[in-house]
Amino acid sequence: MTTAWTLARRAHKMNPSVIREILKVTERPGIISFAGGLPSPQTFPVAAFADACARVLRDDGPGALQYAASEGYAPLREWVAAQLPWPVDPAQVIITTGSQQGLDLVGKVLIDAGSRVLVETPTYLGALQAFAPMEPEPVGVASDAEGPDLQDMKKLAGSGADAARFFYLLPNFQNPTGRSMSEARRADLVAQAAHLGLPLVEDNPYGDLWFDQPPPLPLTARHPEGGIYLGSFSKVLAPGLRLGYLVAPKSIVPKLLQAKQAADLHSPSFNQRLVAEVLKDGFLDRHVPSIRALYKAQCQAMLAALQHEMTGLGLTWNTPDGGMFLWVRLPAGMDAMALLPRAVDRSVAFVPGTAFYADHADPRTLRLCFVTASVAQIQAGVAALAQAVRDMTQLEAA
Amino acid sequence: MTTAWTLARRAHKMNPSVIREILKVTERPGIISFAGGLPSPQTFPVAAFADACARVLRDDGPGALQYAASEGYAPLREWVAAQLPWPVDPAQVIITTGSQQGLDLVGKVLIDAGSRVLVETPTYLGALQAFAPMEPEPVGVASDAEGPDLQDMKKLAGSGADAARFFYLLPNFQNPTGRSMSEARRADLVAQAAHLGLPLVEDNPYGDLWFDQPPPLPLTARHPEGGIYLGSFSKVLAPGLRLGYLVAPKSIVPKLLQAKQAADLHSPSFNQRLVAEVLKDGFLDRHVPSIRALYKAQCQAMLAALQHEMTGLGLTWNTPDGGMFLWVRLPAGMDAMALLPRAVDRSVAFVPGTAFYADHADPRTLRLCFVTASVAQIQAGVAALAQAVRDMTQLEAA
Repeated sequence: MTTAWTLARRAHKMNPSVIREILKVTERPGIISFAGGLPSPQTFPVAAFADACARVLRDDGPGALQYAASEGYAPLREWVAAQLPWPVDPAQVIITTGSQQGLDLVGKVLIDAGSRVLVETPTYLGALQAFAPMEPEPVGVASDAEGPDLQDMKKLAGSGADAARFFYLLPNFQNPTGRSMSEARRADLVAQAAHLGLPLVEDNPYGDLWFDQPPPLPLTARHPEGGIYLGSFSKVLAPGLRLGYLVAPKSIVPKLLQAKQAADLHSPSFNQRLVAEVLKDGFLDRHVPSIRALYKAQCQAMLAALQHEMTGLGLTWNTPDGGMFLWVRLPAGMDAMALLPRAVDRSVAFVPGTAFYADHADPRTLRLCFVTASVAQIQAGVAALAQAVRDMTQLEAA
Repeated sequence: MTTAWTLARRAHKMNPSVIREILKVTERPGIISFAGGLPSPQTFPVAAFADACARVLRDDGPGALQYAASEGYAPLREWVAAQLPWPVDPAQVIITTGSQQGLDLVGKVLIDAGSRVLVETPTYLGALQAFAPMEPEPVGVASDAEGPDLQDMKKLAGSGADAARFFYLLPNFQNPTGRSMSEARRADLVAQAAHLGLPLVEDNPYGDLWFDQPPPLPLTARHPEGGIYLGSFSKVLAPGLRLGYLVAPKSIVPKLLQAKQAADLHSPSFNQRLVAEVLKDGFLDRHVPSIRALYKAQCQAMLAALQHEMTGLGLTWNTPDGGMFLWVRLPAGMDAMALLPRAVDRSVAFVPGTAFYADHADPRTLRLCFVTASVAQIQAGVAALAQAVRDMTQLEAA
């Protein structure tokens, strides 16, 4: 009478991350968390959503609550196509259940077991997790402050049956590092990828969150036939609606759409109509500047706190031009994973960088999110983190 | 400069169905469609949702719009566990983006390329599509009006490395046939599956839509360790919110949860809170009886129309005890796929049954949905269908 559950081979590779387990303690009251990737809830346009709910349900409640087309709500697809900075036909747009689902669909359509997939060093952990069920072999392309090393990309792209299926990239205010790809690197990368016949999968959830000036043109805008572009409403409106989109060459759309239909039939029609309603009349043009100003101030507060608290401790960090994260490197010999429990003892949390590497992880790195905590919390949290670093230094000296 | 998009092997198996293409014409005005699987929009509790939207956004708007746990909103998981007719720990419940996503997650965790998966004859097309990206070999178990043939199940279950990974079943008012599994067949099937060590995946979107009496106890209730159970809010509240759930043995939950997190991080937190709010205070006990009464009346109208219009034409059909569908068999020699364009010429549409078979399709079968069209449309549509059958008969005689 014991049922013989046999798991798929891929399921053995799907394990709760050690980091996620450690970070569960960060939910306990009193912990200042720089670990999450949550947008600041004060940026959510609650009143605009309340109005939109009332209007959508009043004007066509039954329609908004019914099953709908797998590709998404036509006015929302048209809005997406119209606001992108290159010519896009709404027929190329599929609305997804968050841009995370876009990664799942791309994986299903483009990855076979054993397929090589190129990613940045480091890269978004959620993309590695989304691709994992398709059993790829992710390979990290060496990357510097301006973006991926193109010599390394060329070396790893392969050819013929061994060719990488695509290169997954986050050019704007990347998660986890907060870095952005320079104009020159974008131009070179797109030209060389096109020359190699290497498809690009461009993920852009943070591109609107720039501090002083917009980032350079997306990669896909430079060679639309060579890329799939993923966007999200999570950072400019609210993540709890789970809405994103993908834009693909017309030859790939039918397969992605089949995968979408099989995955969840369609993204919630009610949410799609809400977002289309909120976006009317240029709402984002009024709303997003307030998010930019808030995040810039929070980022500056964290940079000032790091400058103030970390002097002489041997840490380095970058200065993001937008987004939600910055990237810290500990002094030689210090391991971020070992630092984490000491930081939690001091009531502050972060994510060790090792989780974000496909291979050759740098154990000295860690990610700090500067948008969830308040400025006062940022100051207290960075001071506590400095204390934890001192604890480690003393421990290692002892 | 041409990018070498290489599709995954599975993508070549993912093709838009011929039927879907034919049915696109059914969206044109004037066509009476029995083809869809859409709940009647007049059953959607629009006012209750409008109230819930206002309350949820007023009480904790930022919380409802923020990222949330992959397993789902705790009060909703508790509600699901409490209302199921066997002891379920909320920790066994994962909220999914429609029960369609439950099928995707089950496929990812339990199916390897080439794995045998047992299904009913016929079975839900969407399940075949959800499993397809994992490249199983679906095999139909012979089925009669009471449910699957247990001798055939035993023969096809296999053993050792060749054992079927699971048997996918819709015991209540099945899509596409509308049939239900008898009490005796349920008891025997569960006992024999447990004896064989064959896991069951039980899909129950329609179980609450009974006409005169509730269906027998679910399969999973009889042997919880041997089954994964999928439920949905689409038929009792509204499909446009895309919310369902799965209940699994505790040993399988962590893998399903990893797959859920990778697929879309979590189902929309706003929608989960809305549904939890609407469900409070026994809402379904007041609401669902009105759906049952409506669907029963619609089903009776369709049965009466079939009786009236089809006399002497050699068709047979079943008498469902609930749900949304009934199943028709054409006279010997007549093909439902060939009938469809003639029916569309007469302004009525249905789904040919062949789409719903894993193998050995019966080309004489077709599915009629009785809940979307009005009673007047049902009468006119069935009369038109009878005329199309006469057209075919004359054509064949000519």
